[in-house]
Amino acid sequence: MDFSSFLTSLGTSFVIFVVLMLIFTWLSRKPGNTVVYYPNRILKGMDPWEGGSRTRNPFAWIREAMSSTEQDIINMSGVDTAVYFVFLSTVLGILVLSGLVLLPVLLPVAATDNSVKMSQANDNTTTFSELDKLAMGNVKEKSNRLFAFLFAAYWVSFVSYYLLWKAYKHVSTLRADALMSPDVRPEQFAVLVRDIPPAPEGQSIKDHVDSYFKSIYPETFYRSLVVTDNKEVNKIYEELEGYKKKLARAEAVYDQSKTTANPAGSRPTTKTGFLGLLGTQVDCIDHYNEKIKDLISKLEAEQKVTLREKQLCAAIVFFTNRVAAASAAQSLHAQMVDNWTVMEAPEPRQLVWTNLQIKFFQRQLRQYIVYVIVALIIFFYLIPIGVISAFTTLDNLKKILPFIKPVVNIAAIRTVLEAYLPQLALIVFLALLPTLLMFLSKAEGIPSQSHAIRATSGKYFYFTVLNVFIGVTLGGALFKTFKQIEKRPNTLIPVLANSLPGSATFFLTFVALKFFVGYGLELSRIVPLIIYHLKRKYLCKTEAELKEAWSPGDLGYATRIPNDMLVITISLCYSVIAPLILPFGVLYFGLGWLVLRNQALKVYVPSFESYGKMWPHIHTRIIASLLLFQLTMCGFIGVKKFYYTPALFPLPIVSLLFWYVCNKKFYRAFADTALEAASRELKENPDMEQVFRAFIPPSLSSEKGDDDQFEDALSQVSRMGSFA
Amino acid sequence: MDFSSFLTSLGTSFVIFVVLMLIFTWLSRKPGNTVVYYPNRILKGMDPWEGGSRTRNPFAWIREAMSSTEQDIINMSGVDTAVYFVFLSTVLGILVLSGLVLLPVLLPVAATDNSVKMSQANDNTTTFSELDKLAMGNVKEKSNRLFAFLFAAYWVSFVSYYLLWKAYKHVSTLRADALMSPDVRPEQFAVLVRDIPPAPEGQSIKDHVDSYFKSIYPETFYRSLVVTDNKEVNKIYEELEGYKKKLARAEAVYDQSKTTANPAGSRPTTKTGFLGLLGTQVDCIDHYNEKIKDLISKLEAEQKVTLREKQLCAAIVFFTNRVAAASAAQSLHAQMVDNWTVMEAPEPRQLVWTNLQIKFFQRQLRQYIVYVIVALIIFFYLIPIGVISAFTTLDNLKKILPFIKPVVNIAAIRTVLEAYLPQLALIVFLALLPTLLMFLSKAEGIPSQSHAIRATSGKYFYFTVLNVFIGVTLGGALFKTFKQIEKRPNTLIPVLANSLPGSATFFLTFVALKFFVGYGLELSRIVPLIIYHLKRKYLCKTEAELKEAWSPGDLGYATRIPNDMLVITISLCYSVIAPLILPFGVLYFGLGWLVLRNQALKVYVPSFESYGKMWPHIHTRIIASLLLFQLTMCGFIGVKKFYYTPALFPLPIVSLLFWYVCNKKFYRAFADTALEAASRELKENPDMEQVFRAFIPPSLSSEKGDDDQFEDALSQVSRMGSFA
Repeated sequence: MDFSSFLTSLGTSFVIFVVLMLIFTWLSRKPGNTVVYYPNRILKGMDPWEGGSRTRNPFAWIREAMSSTEQDIINMSGVDTAVYFVFLSTVLGILVLSGLVLLPVLLPVAATDNSVKMSQANDNTTTFSELDKLAMGNVKEKSNRLFAFLFAAYWVSFVSYYLLWKAYKHVSTLRADALMSPDVRPEQFAVLVRDIPPAPEGQSIKDHVDSYFKSIYPETFYRSLVVTDNKEVNKIYEELEGYKKKLARAEAVYDQSKTTANPAGSRPTTKTGFLGLLGTQVDCIDHYNEKIKDLISKLEAEQKVTLREKQLCAAIVFFTNRVAAASAAQSLHAQMVDNWTVMEAPEPRQLVWTNLQIKFFQRQLRQYIVYVIVALIIFFYLIPIGVISAFTTLDNLKKILPFIKPVVNIAAIRTVLEAYLPQLALIVFLALLPTLLMFLSKAEGIPSQSHAIRATSGKYFYFTVLNVFIGVTLGGALFKTFKQIEKRPNTLIPVLANSLPGSATFFLTFVALKFFVGYGLELSRIVPLIIYHLKRKYLCKTEAELKEAWSPGDLGYATRIPNDMLVITISLCYSVIAPLILPFGVLYFGLGWLVLRNQALKVYVPSFESYGKMWPHIHTRIIASLLLFQLTMCGFIGVKKFYYTPALFPLPIVSLLFWYVCNKKFYRAFADTALEAASRELKENPDMEQVFRAFIPPSLSSEKGDDDQFEDALSQVSRMGSFA
Repeated sequence: MDFSSFLTSLGTSFVIFVVLMLIFTWLSRKPGNTVVYYPNRILKGMDPWEGGSRTRNPFAWIREAMSSTEQDIINMSGVDTAVYFVFLSTVLGILVLSGLVLLPVLLPVAATDNSVKMSQANDNTTTFSELDKLAMGNVKEKSNRLFAFLFAAYWVSFVSYYLLWKAYKHVSTLRADALMSPDVRPEQFAVLVRDIPPAPEGQSIKDHVDSYFKSIYPETFYRSLVVTDNKEVNKIYEELEGYKKKLARAEAVYDQSKTTANPAGSRPTTKTGFLGLLGTQVDCIDHYNEKIKDLISKLEAEQKVTLREKQLCAAIVFFTNRVAAASAAQSLHAQMVDNWTVMEAPEPRQLVWTNLQIKFFQRQLRQYIVYVIVALIIFFYLIPIGVISAFTTLDNLKKILPFIKPVVNIAAIRTVLEAYLPQLALIVFLALLPTLLMFLSKAEGIPSQSHAIRATSGKYFYFTVLNVFIGVTLGGALFKTFKQIEKRPNTLIPVLANSLPGSATFFLTFVALKFFVGYGLELSRIVPLIIYHLKRKYLCKTEAELKEAWSPGDLGYATRIPNDMLVITISLCYSVIAPLILPFGVLYFGLGWLVLRNQALKVYVPSFESYGKMWPHIHTRIIASLLLFQLTMCGFIGVKKFYYTPALFPLPIVSLLFWYVCNKKFYRAFADTALEAASRELKENPDMEQVFRAFIPPSLSSEKGDDDQFEDALSQVSRMGSFA
């Protein structure tokens, strides 16, 4: 890519961003769009335009984002989001501090040498670009100028250590503060118990759990909730909810039909058979009411059966204070470690109920199997995709699906299909990959949504770094130099070293595209806006349906963090080799911080709260990127035949040491709750009944006020001893 | 070594054993020796000859040992000793079951082949032994007979897995039973707190600890005991105790001097100067009494100063029940992991006080430094010893120490010295090695004696296995084949494989010597007997001195277990290659079991109780031996050019998996106390004051009844809340 086309691409991206930002300014001021641009505020019962959002100034949102404090973020979007911003600002800090030193030092050093020019003069097959002159590739072999690059590698590393240390400390405080909060949070009073051994003859699992915990915690044990096999009851519950929605919809349709011309309205009808298309015609509202009545009694019967007979070997146990729960979650209860394993209870909303009864060694086994599968996917995903691509030619498709023949024979469609079919399998695969990885992570037996997301994010990180970063770099280098290598195989290494900085241009464009177009789309929310308006117009009849249509979702850490990580990896690895990447990295994280600050305050609603447990995961991966950077630096400087290359070797060791120390010092406080945090006083005495109820899955919660039926599996009040 | 000299060596060892056993039978029946042969019974206040020990039957002790149950061992010598017997009997089981199948199967298979004879016919430099015919070396290359050896390797491995699994389960139950015991044990009510952060201005460390734990455990916190810098007070205390002993001795001497001829007796005198040799002559009893009076007041003053002003950043915290203590020991207390680290308190008698105040990261650092030092010692200890040996020639010694010249010039002494001087450094090193390793282990900052012993045992295991086993095997093989290799270097591997089984004879003799002579000496206790009688006759004057003279010590796991491990490693590694080793291994562990059973019941007094924490350590090292066996088998069968060698490759993987599963299932219950064990009811309500007093070091415990002075640093009664 030459310099002018690079500038063109950059310019285009910038124009797109500006246009999207203007669209955002214009659309977000329309009252009908508030649910798309301010859903978080609306759901929290706030005025969407508070703080003067509705001005004509297109930069008002920037001012708002800049002036928001960390506490605002925690209040609006939780600790996890605040931790995500710590991540963004830490990386931003690393790149800014690196850039401030590296750009003024390295660019002149590189630009005034002439290795690229010389190699071009010798060999006219190499393409030459203005940008390459500003990179390390332009420095001659064995030159003393390489000292500057060596120093730069140290500078970047130590800036990273310093800021990462500060960030870990800060996040640790954030987490402690959140855990100390005087608000009553149900999950802080509960632990999740798995691997319950079979109950003795004549005892239900619930009795077994109750007697076990009552004997260990005579004073602080409150109650237990045994996990049940809810498949059947969930099915009935979902059917019931479906009919309730249909009823609401039918009533809305009926109300709308009451126009002045037809004041009685026309009652909607449906057919009882397949998809409402076949069978006898019935009145909707009556039919649904009847169904609902049937289902409610069926549900109640099934609830009783489930609670009594479908108890599984897992339970949630409640304690009357936070210290008891936090300490129980960290203690070994049974002599055999694979019995009565106890861990912190996740929030009720993020429990993965179906995983709870998976046994100890099965979890271990599943984990290793999943790791192997993921490793195979990461390294060999191109093979099945290649095979599938080979078979999905137009001619094959026509043979298998003869009815598409008339469509395919149209010339225009044929051209488009022929262009995209080969990549179709790849596109589908990449689109489905996060879902696939999430499925695999859940298959490990992970009990909470947030943990599954961390696991997915980790897998996706390795996929992107290995395939995008290393794939493109090595692929590009090998392709460019293929002809030369054919002639003189022993020039492989120097040619590789000279052309690796060349891939930098590709990544510059890649990062620029990502931030201008990606964050432009993010800010303007054009796609959700269009979908919402389409749904509103053609599908939604009731308030509930409308609310569902604009429900904003969460920040989506599972893919967002790995994508950011890819940019960090690229920026770090090229920071010294081609320092021009740094301003682009700074722009990516700066713009990202701004745009996402806006989105976190106004748009996204977090779907769980893990009190910053994502941070150690992020920290480790930033250090992995740093290690990759240091190793590539050793390689690059080595290839330049620099005598003092060994001066770089301590860096990877320092990184590993830094990781080790951070891990030792901070990690356990993220895995467990520190008792000093849990022992803080609460605002009010916890209403234990409410804490307990928070964990009952909706399909099992009774509609009635009393809970006689729960006595079987759920409740066992034991306010004894000191609570008398 | 040929067959007849092997038999001679075996016979000699056996005769020595029989003689030592007879000596034991004879000496142990003399009443004056009971303190040497039955000290454990005497110290427990039992009749030394209960159960008919004093018969003329030389095998009575065997009957007693055989009929003793595990519970007897636990009662007499604690859980750790019972675990040691589980270890002995497990290994015995492995070797017996292996031998039952391997001897009848492999010996005929090997003996009827003739590879050794052939190689002898071809090459008359190889020495030939009858024993070698019974080993795998006698099987021809590529022979189908190797299937039998392959099967044997699987048999030995699976027998080991089965018995190790059973043993781990059994030991886990032993530990749980001991922890559930209804007796009040002080260490079960206490936790050790280290890395206490600096106290806020105006607070003592003790106030800091008290307020911290009271806020987390308002109901179960009892009291804290801050660790103080006891150097000064210990010095005074030891001086005081020394004078007390001297006084008792002087009084005994005075009493003895009151014969009928001289009824008044002569009061002993001493000089006040250096070692009682210089200075003015004084009356002993008066002088010592005066000194003691001085020192007591000095000690009391120093105690006050120590308790008030020398508080360190570690403490022992007491709880009013076992569950609270067990759970606190496993929980994270502070958000920063390197503050307020809490662990189970060791028994008071095994606390390593001087290590308690070492900080978190310093402990980590010390550990790694010690590991590096130990690795260097294991691999390179021969270098400094070689250097020292080179310098300690007689001529050099004469130059440095001219006064030894006349002694050295005597011909007889000169010969002996010249024979032993070269090995002197090595002998001294090997004798001091356990002490050195113990010193290094304590330098890691380990807080308890039993943990330090486990650490020493591990280090010693690696030393013996690497140097004795691998050293002798490879050394022997290389030495024998050196000439052949010189001529035809490419025959190295086959020659190595053929001569490795040859080292088996060396190890047969080694094991036989170890059990016959070693256990003979152990049983007969000749050395302690002689020392005791000498001391009694010439040194001891008082009862206390006598008691010290016959105090038996403990089983000495730090060197005993690594030595047993070496025998297991040898037996396992040669079990298939030269199955004749198996009966010797069986004899070693069988005799060992018998002799040590006797010693555990009657002689040794355990110096600590760690509730079987040694087991995971033993288990891991047996599996390490098994792995070494499996890897050598892969190598040996491979060298025989056997086509099905890869059929052995799964074995090491299975071993690692087995280790992993055992570790996951059982290990944590050995690191921590399971709450279900701690929650068992106690026989009586614990006397917390007594529990607390158990941890006060003798130099700090007041002679008076009241403990006003402890208020400063030790006590803070807080019987609040539910204990009102």
